[in-house]
Amino acid sequence: MTTMTQHLDFFTAELEQLGQAKRSFLEIGRRAGRFPSATARTGAPGGDREISVWCSNDYLGMGQNPSVLEAMKNTVDAFGAGSGGSRNIGGTNYYHVLLEQELAALHQKEAALIFSSGYTANDGALTVLAGRMPGTLVFSDALNHASIIDGLRHSGAEKLIFRHNDTAHLEELLAAADPERPKLIVLESVYSMSGDVAPLAEFAELARRYGATTFIDEVHAVGMYGPEGAGIAAREGIADGFDVVMGTLAKGFGTAGGYIAGPAALVEAVRSFSRPFIFTTSLPPAMAAGALAAVQHLRSSDTERERLAANARLLHRLLNGHGIPFVSPQSHIVSVLVRDDLQCQRASALLLDRHGIYVQAINAPSVRAGEEILRVAPSATHTTSDVEKFAEALDGIWTELGLPREPAAVAR
Amino acid sequence: MTTMTQHLDFFTAELEQLGQAKRSFLEIGRRAGRFPSATARTGAPGGDREISVWCSNDYLGMGQNPSVLEAMKNTVDAFGAGSGGSRNIGGTNYYHVLLEQELAALHQKEAALIFSSGYTANDGALTVLAGRMPGTLVFSDALNHASIIDGLRHSGAEKLIFRHNDTAHLEELLAAADPERPKLIVLESVYSMSGDVAPLAEFAELARRYGATTFIDEVHAVGMYGPEGAGIAAREGIADGFDVVMGTLAKGFGTAGGYIAGPAALVEAVRSFSRPFIFTTSLPPAMAAGALAAVQHLRSSDTERERLAANARLLHRLLNGHGIPFVSPQSHIVSVLVRDDLQCQRASALLLDRHGIYVQAINAPSVRAGEEILRVAPSATHTTSDVEKFAEALDGIWTELGLPREPAAVAR
Repeated sequence: MTTMTQHLDFFTAELEQLGQAKRSFLEIGRRAGRFPSATARTGAPGGDREISVWCSNDYLGMGQNPSVLEAMKNTVDAFGAGSGGSRNIGGTNYYHVLLEQELAALHQKEAALIFSSGYTANDGALTVLAGRMPGTLVFSDALNHASIIDGLRHSGAEKLIFRHNDTAHLEELLAAADPERPKLIVLESVYSMSGDVAPLAEFAELARRYGATTFIDEVHAVGMYGPEGAGIAAREGIADGFDVVMGTLAKGFGTAGGYIAGPAALVEAVRSFSRPFIFTTSLPPAMAAGALAAVQHLRSSDTERERLAANARLLHRLLNGHGIPFVSPQSHIVSVLVRDDLQCQRASALLLDRHGIYVQAINAPSVRAGEEILRVAPSATHTTSDVEKFAEALDGIWTELGLPREPAAVAR
Repeated sequence: MTTMTQHLDFFTAELEQLGQAKRSFLEIGRRAGRFPSATARTGAPGGDREISVWCSNDYLGMGQNPSVLEAMKNTVDAFGAGSGGSRNIGGTNYYHVLLEQELAALHQKEAALIFSSGYTANDGALTVLAGRMPGTLVFSDALNHASIIDGLRHSGAEKLIFRHNDTAHLEELLAAADPERPKLIVLESVYSMSGDVAPLAEFAELARRYGATTFIDEVHAVGMYGPEGAGIAAREGIADGFDVVMGTLAKGFGTAGGYIAGPAALVEAVRSFSRPFIFTTSLPPAMAAGALAAVQHLRSSDTERERLAANARLLHRLLNGHGIPFVSPQSHIVSVLVRDDLQCQRASALLLDRHGIYVQAINAPSVRAGEEILRVAPSATHTTSDVEKFAEALDGIWTELGLPREPAAVAR
């Protein structure tokens, strides 16, 4: 038997085992200027269909901001499509440099470095920062994102996991650790699948007390929170309590790519030693220019942030009124708890079929089995009436599927 | 002492140790419509300077192809800047689907899957393909790219390394292996730092004989070689001897992103299990549309491929005439052997200062110490006169630096 026959048998069986969890990708076209509307290719008779997207990470609608689109098109005209090389070999364009300067300024850090994606930013940076200095002991939140988990795994560093957002547990671990060992605490500000916010002041204080270096992932916060959109730590006035901040250009900033910002020596070390950074063609100049325009816009405009916050508050209130449980009211990520994979898929399908509302059902492995959610993301582009219609639609489906209601709807 | 103090000391010392190898990034703007010309920000008095880029991986100049730029701009207008989500969560645009269909057709495979970069394509695909089926034994070429090495490392699979392009050595290893174990052979067609081409027919025959699955990285070949730009294996008429082909959209296709194409079950497995794929915002629709236009253009036009081949042949002939050694005449990657890191940097600096020619010096760890090269990449956008001027300039610098000449200039 050839390996290919084994491969086909093996992977076909594995895919069959996935069953309901098999990922199907809804093919959509979000029409610029008409977000959150999109055209969905549903494969149904009658063809394409107009829908409202309620699960995009383009939370502020910057993906349709005219200044971003103009910057991209002008840069395509000026510098072409791709960058033509890795950063080290012919692929450093002006806009890469300008964008890194802007991100360093946004976060008031000495330097910044951009990557092709948030995944590679976490993977590339943590492999170096956790792995290169011998003896480093890492303290990592239990709900940290896959890219953090992978970066830490690739670093080879010893890792201790503290219970999610549990400062007492982290302190226990810090107190028990060898005081001489270098320590790195890795956490997020807003968690992607629960939407809750870390108690950053307490974490920063713990880090200070135990002399640990801190790495904070603010991907679901940059652009959306804090002065100039600098994130949750900045909102709390404690940005300097976190040594390295990691962010994305693909969510609040509406474009593509990831980044870190921090002390010059650390950023320079990542630049010099990170393999996913070194061995990758740099971001297209037009993407860097678009991201730069988005960051600049959100440093000077609060309008989008305020719209998003108002929509999130309204949605929290309406869901609470209906007794529909969701994980946390602390952010714009409203993870509606269905707690059953089939019901979760049914709810998602009904929202789409009946109401033209697209919310992806989130099943394992993105969340634990039994904790299936509809990860609802209102955006700055939804209107008050959109939010009201959404809550009404969900309320109807909740009844239809016989899902349990909870008087104190906020679950944790 | 805080960890940050330790971090700063440690990384500052590490960066100092890099010394000459410390990477400086030349900041350039390749002007669309005027490739290979670019404006360099040299920091010298007098400011910006016009240069000719001789180290870009945009080998065919597709980064300035009008159909590519139009596709990008139109898609920015239609769908905006970023995709707004991962492929599974609201981030699948029409153009992602169309591009994957086009790539599958190009390679005559059942399916294709796009990634943010070539690095993540190799890392993501090999982690799944080598790592998921228990007992898989991997055979990997000694000069495989960093992204292949990392993907195989992350897979946890047992790996045997065969000497570069050495079919006899691979056969030895295959013959000695347990016949029952699943086997995966991983190699490239055109090697990025040596420019030599693998004896693909012999490798395919070995794989057939030992029933191994084959994974071929054609990043420096797709677009540039074979019918419709399908790569070296297609040129040799043996594309079906390689089960999974991996390519990039950032080099011959002039845009950004990486991909694999292969049997549906394997591609679907990568789609379902690859973490860098799942946990990453998808390529911006405009990048997918630009890449699609580039692939379509190069499937129907040989002009760019012929210009590149003619420039490469001319450069090989001229360097041979001057006795300037280079690794291989088998491709358009002309790795001029300097074999000394300081001399290599001097040659690069002289080319830039005296002649406005930009070729990056390649030092360790991209090549082994003592094998430093100027990695010269003529492109389809260079004229015959550009090639002649380049060879003349290099000849002068070779004399000035007292670098050794070799009568049989092709070194290996």
